[in-house]
Amino acid sequence: MGARRRGLCETVIGVARSEDVCSAAVSLGVVDSAVLSLAEIAPTLGEGDVIFIAVPTLSVRKVLEQVRNHVSPAVTVTDGASVKGSVLRDVEAVYGEVPSQIVLGHPIAGSEKSGVTASNPDLYVRHRVILTPTPETGADHLQRATAIWEGVGAEVLHLSVPEHDEILGATSHLPHAIAFSLVDTLAHDSNNEQIFRYAAGGFRDFTRIASSDAVMWRDIMLANRQAVVKAIDLFVANVTRLRQAIQDEDGETLFNTFERAKIARDYFSKMLAERSGITLDKE
Amino acid sequence: MGARRRGLCETVIGVARSEDVCSAAVSLGVVDSAVLSLAEIAPTLGEGDVIFIAVPTLSVRKVLEQVRNHVSPAVTVTDGASVKGSVLRDVEAVYGEVPSQIVLGHPIAGSEKSGVTASNPDLYVRHRVILTPTPETGADHLQRATAIWEGVGAEVLHLSVPEHDEILGATSHLPHAIAFSLVDTLAHDSNNEQIFRYAAGGFRDFTRIASSDAVMWRDIMLANRQAVVKAIDLFVANVTRLRQAIQDEDGETLFNTFERAKIARDYFSKMLAERSGITLDKE
Repeated sequence: MGARRRGLCETVIGVARSEDVCSAAVSLGVVDSAVLSLAEIAPTLGEGDVIFIAVPTLSVRKVLEQVRNHVSPAVTVTDGASVKGSVLRDVEAVYGEVPSQIVLGHPIAGSEKSGVTASNPDLYVRHRVILTPTPETGADHLQRATAIWEGVGAEVLHLSVPEHDEILGATSHLPHAIAFSLVDTLAHDSNNEQIFRYAAGGFRDFTRIASSDAVMWRDIMLANRQAVVKAIDLFVANVTRLRQAIQDEDGETLFNTFERAKIARDYFSKMLAERSGITLDKE
Repeated sequence: MGARRRGLCETVIGVARSEDVCSAAVSLGVVDSAVLSLAEIAPTLGEGDVIFIAVPTLSVRKVLEQVRNHVSPAVTVTDGASVKGSVLRDVEAVYGEVPSQIVLGHPIAGSEKSGVTASNPDLYVRHRVILTPTPETGADHLQRATAIWEGVGAEVLHLSVPEHDEILGATSHLPHAIAFSLVDTLAHDSNNEQIFRYAAGGFRDFTRIASSDAVMWRDIMLANRQAVVKAIDLFVANVTRLRQAIQDEDGETLFNTFERAKIARDYFSKMLAERSGITLDKE
């Protein structure tokens, strides 16, 4: 939608599995036209065209199979899945190698909303997009993916696939696991009506991300399993130490932990605010 | 500051331990005048006057001792500490009973900021204040505390002391323990610069409360120890089940947990939004 509004592409064609989504996408102005199958439009695509795969992480492979079967190697193929290691393995499994046309990426923007009605042409303005090129990635394909992201207002950065997955495991996948788990814990409490009635707004910010799409997050947790389990283990060990300090009425440990967290939070917030004015937004 | 601006009191007098805070409070218009000791102004106080104790939870007792030594039983005494059971025990310890002048309360408003420079006369507008009267609480004193809170725009609700502490343990104290612990975990990671650099904004909302005052939160965790430990145990058990499901690649359990949390979050958000238009804000 952002690329279309800004005239970055001659035509934007949507591919979706349902007629309803296709017609909503056209009537909302997200795309110029929409079809039910990639095979329908694949013969018309060539050098300069870009396919953006935007499906839950574990569905990327099926789409890649269609791309391999129908699409020319001249076409640039990129994606927006939140885990890159599993998608890279899918590419290798489907193609038996990493073709130069593949440029994997992850826009660090979005919200707890999903679906075509959540489209927002300015979603990426002043947000970051992480691309994870491999040695096989073609310079022309990388340039084409970069141009579209920059064209919709994003700042493009590069990370290796393992760095991406470890960092996002800690900063995004772990907090989502915590938020889902917190809301699930409280919803099972016999006082749940009272709990949500008296919940303060900090709580609402805190649990907002637990409204995110369940399929998307199931896939992310499975696809980035090792990094997420490692991050949960570190976090649970830390919260267990804190629990013990509360149990033992160890005020000094509590104060030191809270003070250290406050200093770290304030330091990193300040660093980010000063750095570039880039808004880091929802996963 | 809100009461003063709205003319709810003839005079608002601040009591603080440092000259600097006293003069800042006067120059910022928070109070009409400020003194270093309650004893200085206690002889002038009588029926119709209200003392609001606004110190970290475990410092309330020292202030109560001064109140008992210097202040007439005709004066209404209320507080804003985040835990009510410990303050009630302090009242009983200091007075040997619960005097009718004591009206304990907890405004569900505030932010991660603290100190006189964080004063905001509209902080309580459309926010909730929980009062926890006991059978001993005098109707006139309860009425006077209620009138001030309503006068600054708040909605006043009543809970019993144990209900308050259990509900706030789950909705506020537990999320703060989690947020402090998450930031502390990530700050100790060898990748911490990268982690905070690539952190998404959901993460920033999520960790904002970890910038809260360390003394205030040390006191809250200690004062509401039993409820907080119980809440942490339930949460850790839940997050551990989730971790196991990720480890076991049990997509069905993950999907069900996330879907349940999403439904609960959305249901309670809708219920709150429809109920009254009251904004529930930061703890």
